Amino acid sequence: MSKTRSERLIENAEGMDAVVIMNDGEPFLDSTFWYLCEQPGGVFESSFAVVRGDGTLDVIVSVLEEESAKEGVGNVCVFHNAAERENFLKESLKGCKKVGFNTHASTYAMVSYVRKIVDGIEPVDAGKAIDSTVSIKDEKEIEATRKACRISSTVAKELPEYLSEGVSEKEVASRMDNRMRELGGTGNAFDTIAAFGPYSAQPHHMPCDYRLKKGDTALFDFGTKYDRYCSDMTRTLFLGNPPDVLERAYEVVKEAQLAGIREYRDGANANAADLAARKIIDESEFKGTFIHSFGHGIGMDVHQAISISPRSEQILHAGNIVSAEPGIYIPGVGGIRIEDTVLITKDGCEILTDFDHSFTVV
Amino acid sequence: MSKTRSERLIENAEGMDAVVIMNDGEPFLDSTFWYLCEQPGGVFESSFAVVRGDGTLDVIVSVLEEESAKEGVGNVCVFHNAAERENFLKESLKGCKKVGFNTHASTYAMVSYVRKIVDGIEPVDAGKAIDSTVSIKDEKEIEATRKACRISSTVAKELPEYLSEGVSEKEVASRMDNRMRELGGTGNAFDTIAAFGPYSAQPHHMPCDYRLKKGDTALFDFGTKYDRYCSDMTRTLFLGNPPDVLERAYEVVKEAQLAGIREYRDGANANAADLAARKIIDESEFKGTFIHSFGHGIGMDVHQAISISPRSEQILHAGNIVSAEPGIYIPGVGGIRIEDTVLITKDGCEILTDFDHSFTVV
Repeated sequence: MSKTRSERLIENAEGMDAVVIMNDGEPFLDSTFWYLCEQPGGVFESSFAVVRGDGTLDVIVSVLEEESAKEGVGNVCVFHNAAERENFLKESLKGCKKVGFNTHASTYAMVSYVRKIVDGIEPVDAGKAIDSTVSIKDEKEIEATRKACRISSTVAKELPEYLSEGVSEKEVASRMDNRMRELGGTGNAFDTIAAFGPYSAQPHHMPCDYRLKKGDTALFDFGTKYDRYCSDMTRTLFLGNPPDVLERAYEVVKEAQLAGIREYRDGANANAADLAARKIIDESEFKGTFIHSFGHGIGMDVHQAISISPRSEQILHAGNIVSAEPGIYIPGVGGIRIEDTVLITKDGCEILTDFDHSFTVV
Repeated sequence: MSKTRSERLIENAEGMDAVVIMNDGEPFLDSTFWYLCEQPGGVFESSFAVVRGDGTLDVIVSVLEEESAKEGVGNVCVFHNAAERENFLKESLKGCKKVGFNTHASTYAMVSYVRKIVDGIEPVDAGKAIDSTVSIKDEKEIEATRKACRISSTVAKELPEYLSEGVSEKEVASRMDNRMRELGGTGNAFDTIAAFGPYSAQPHHMPCDYRLKKGDTALFDFGTKYDRYCSDMTRTLFLGNPPDVLERAYEVVKEAQLAGIREYRDGANANAADLAARKIIDESEFKGTFIHSFGHGIGMDVHQAISISPRSEQILHAGNIVSAEPGIYIPGVGGIRIEDTVLITKDGCEILTDFDHSFTVV
């Protein structure tokens, strides 16, 4: 029988007697909680998930969350008051010394509370162990990501229909967000970027009232959630023929993306894809214009665990899900980015998003 | 000259030499950061705002956030690397012993980092001081909230047009969200609740594919952000005549809301409004069906600082913005809730939302 998520986490948590994942109030919620407990719904404020040394999972929740908690996995421990909650925590962490916390995703108040309640524990950072665990997706997670990618890919294919002279960035972004929900998405994976004309030269531009003109670039970076899992993709199109420099930049970005994706496989250095793509761009007339990294891990959080950058020392593993998103940005003129969501496999990779990558003039 | 927000905070932070507000990575961002620094935009991950004993404000940000930071207030300290960041923190907290942190809105990693960098500080919880400060809104904040309320009120008035037999909860919720953005809203204040028929008896029901039938209740709880400030309102309507019991429940909720709002004024006990509304409901045939509290503070977070519940010991002050939202819930039949966003004033209160509260059959 394959290992549970909690068993994999505690194996990765070297030297720790237990790992405690906690939610404070919104928005201070740790996606690792849902990863481990696998509940389809529920808010789970002020809840605890304790992975014990033997790989068992205690899910400590208030009576308000009892029903939602029982739809997931783990030993559900339901408290009706503070004293009961304390007893569950003490019992769950009995005999533990080194206890791992997700220190960048737990509030100071919550960690302090556990330290106060349970005598003699020494908190250590379990961030790396959590990253190693959540970055290797199981079949259920891959299936949810596939569905998220299918939804955003449908929207990517429809983009030419959304573009016409005078439409604003905000209008198109809002139409895309709606359409993703209409297709079954359960909310944006992140705020949709719609960037026209010179604004497309800013990688993180937020949609404004700028209206599309003939010759403008129209860049869209977007994704949806499905069963909590994210898709992430970028398509760049043009309304009427753009300046020649942008058509040429488009072809270079396309080539760079392919070169990067060719480096995506189980066992590869994570920086190889970035370096391969960057080489293509830096050997072209666009040297120095690829001003961010090639990719990042994707999961319940849209930026998760893995960095595909020149200096990354990580190794890719089958089951990783990562973005592939080179870009060229020419201030005052426009920017080009092409991005897919990619699953690393034993013998290479599988691109989960699907849209026409060819130079497209609407 | 009136006091700055930072000056008010440090006055409320009794016994503390400084207060440090921090952001970790998304979504672990503290709205207090934007409250103090007043930047219109920017992400500000891994940024610090230090309110010093004399009420001055140091805003410590990476060079990537320099431009956004300078659009706000405070002494902007720009670091290019970890060593520079450490120096700014040491300098800013020089000589401080008791340092306040927003412990329920700062990660353990960030507080631990400051403790490691700055020798000899003792962290204390500044949560209450922050609540007292942010809950009294200034003119700029009230104006932003007014605009948010105006946008959602327009949607509330349009709701009858959105309803027809067979429309689903999800469809109406999505239309409302779009419309709020179209009207200038900058995103939902929270996930819109659209609850039809028996689902309206669940106060936190999430929109599903259920389709509206003749005789159904249609309850909508929604709000938008504008300049980071939230509106919050609930309108309950009916498609065709509902069972008599729901018409009667509607009138009782309406009366209870008015009774509660009559208790809203500067200097009043926060629980008075809840008790007045609850008395109306509990003296009717619907005794015991008002299963949540009457209201909560509203600001950059939709639940903020103030609790209007039977056991609340808080005092209301002019400048507080709170909800007024009694409800009656009859399992299997339907629920009624009427909610406005209300500004507490010197001599009473001002209702910022605006829609027809009368029993409405579409």
